[in-house]
Amino acid sequence: MITITIQKQIQLKKRPTGVPTSEHFEFVEVPVESPAKGEILLQTIYISVDPYLRGRMNDTKSYIPPFKLNEAISSGVIGKVVESKSDLFEVGDFVIGSLGWQQFSVAKDNTVRKIDPNLAPVSAYLSVLGMTGLTAYFGLLDIGKPKAGETVVVSGAAGAVGSIVGQIAKIKGARVVGIAGSDEKVRYLLDELGFDAAINYNTQDVGSALKEACPDGIDVYFENVGGEISDTIFPLLNNFARIPVCGAISAYNNSEPDVGPRVQGYLIKTSSLMQGFTVGNYSSRFGEGAKELASWLLEGKLKYEETVTEGFENTIDAFLDLFKGANLGKAIVKVADSDK
Amino acid sequence: MITITIQKQIQLKKRPTGVPTSEHFEFVEVPVESPAKGEILLQTIYISVDPYLRGRMNDTKSYIPPFKLNEAISSGVIGKVVESKSDLFEVGDFVIGSLGWQQFSVAKDNTVRKIDPNLAPVSAYLSVLGMTGLTAYFGLLDIGKPKAGETVVVSGAAGAVGSIVGQIAKIKGARVVGIAGSDEKVRYLLDELGFDAAINYNTQDVGSALKEACPDGIDVYFENVGGEISDTIFPLLNNFARIPVCGAISAYNNSEPDVGPRVQGYLIKTSSLMQGFTVGNYSSRFGEGAKELASWLLEGKLKYEETVTEGFENTIDAFLDLFKGANLGKAIVKVADSDK
Repeated sequence: MITITIQKQIQLKKRPTGVPTSEHFEFVEVPVESPAKGEILLQTIYISVDPYLRGRMNDTKSYIPPFKLNEAISSGVIGKVVESKSDLFEVGDFVIGSLGWQQFSVAKDNTVRKIDPNLAPVSAYLSVLGMTGLTAYFGLLDIGKPKAGETVVVSGAAGAVGSIVGQIAKIKGARVVGIAGSDEKVRYLLDELGFDAAINYNTQDVGSALKEACPDGIDVYFENVGGEISDTIFPLLNNFARIPVCGAISAYNNSEPDVGPRVQGYLIKTSSLMQGFTVGNYSSRFGEGAKELASWLLEGKLKYEETVTEGFENTIDAFLDLFKGANLGKAIVKVADSDK
Repeated sequence: MITITIQKQIQLKKRPTGVPTSEHFEFVEVPVESPAKGEILLQTIYISVDPYLRGRMNDTKSYIPPFKLNEAISSGVIGKVVESKSDLFEVGDFVIGSLGWQQFSVAKDNTVRKIDPNLAPVSAYLSVLGMTGLTAYFGLLDIGKPKAGETVVVSGAAGAVGSIVGQIAKIKGARVVGIAGSDEKVRYLLDELGFDAAINYNTQDVGSALKEACPDGIDVYFENVGGEISDTIFPLLNNFARIPVCGAISAYNNSEPDVGPRVQGYLIKTSSLMQGFTVGNYSSRFGEGAKELASWLLEGKLKYEETVTEGFENTIDAFLDLFKGANLGKAIVKVADSDK
């Protein structure tokens, strides 16, 4: 007798142009596979939903290949080992890896990494101790290079990356100004994270608010959003300013060309630098970054928030909410209890 | 009896908006002053006319202060000592300095630098051995960092900076593609300077011509022009491309906002860098740059052209011609014979 366990998987059904909707995705029933030697069977505990995934839904050349149609979407996932055919993992271990959006996954033991549930809640490995924390860490420190007394502006400031960027900039002694999309987020930045100023781009004129919040100009702008918010930065740049270009979420769903003031003149006048990057560029240094982030976390110097959506069936909504600016901190989906 | 010698000086009369015309300037008669102790009297031999001077005609904050109304325009000038009250200079010496647009100047002996008329024609110190050569040298090598086998694209390629950029990139073993504004310039780049390909932006579709000329993508783009030509570069960038942003001449006379596709998405996808700069950033390394440029010149590895306008009275026309793309190589005005 053969027992087949059926699970749900989320596939990309149609490539979106513009804003994706639920019709671009499909829940498909697929069997839970059995691990072979050197593999483990994982129950999905948390799924990371991230803006950059939107880019992978387009069929265009980028730093990671596009998702394929009629295959599972994948992203950072925390799983719990429920069956092990590997000497490296035991049942009950927690792991992180790039895995499909489904309830169970089989993974080769060298494609996932064990995480320590005693150091921090396991979900933290998707945020402050994981990809978004490392993105903030390397983008800010390796490209932005903030110095004590300088002014650092970060957009998407209440998001998973932006909130860590601002706090690291504070640790380095900079004056930190955040741009976010609600009064609740602004209060969070000011009251919880200790930002020096924060601007609500939905209710304030960003250009004039920035001018007021940055009387000494801008030395570092950590770019998460692009678009009109970013346009207001350039006239305020100081000489030798640095702009780590991490994201441009405002443009991810554009089907029209994204047009604005050209930046060349501003860069020349101020000898400023813009550097695009993805966290993968720093993979050889992840250990160093994760170690310092963990020590700041344990010292209480870094706080982080999560916006947790309950239930695998709500994964797509959680992803789409990113483009509505709905999340505070890291957006994750809780698929199953971690029992930890 | 007191003899006063009268000379002509070119002053900024009105700040241009948009394209400057002769009405923004005025020829004014002023006395030739006498040098005091530690000063020298110089006869102006060559005047450098440069696109960046347009920016100094606006009353806006930039890396150098704006010209003042009713005062002399100034730029790089080669002068010949006609009277010396300094131990450092003798009558007949040639010097270079930042001096007014006038026929004679008095300069403190520590504000000008002696040049060697035996190493190269003295005008070369305004171009390949001077500011434009150093601009090409440091922008390309310090920011662009071309490697052998990479593809380097330069706009304004037949200009004073661009022509040197392309030749240095060839010296470094790169494949070099130039963009210029006439068939004559294209021929010059291909036949005289050894560029691998050259595009006439006035007769060709730059986007598709670039795609053809850069089958392996673009690793370095040396930006001299901005505007629509520059827009065509971004979709062709390779991973970790570098863009030294030196000039944006297409926008210098804009009175309307200069608008085009935003670059953030391209920079993220390719982890590319844009770095604005001015040659003054490298002043502590001018010696090193000038030495290497001179050695390449003497070895015949570097060629340079000059577009020489004869006569002080034509200085303004020579300047305005820059924005018509009229010059091949460095644009200079010959004010008096050097007798060398």
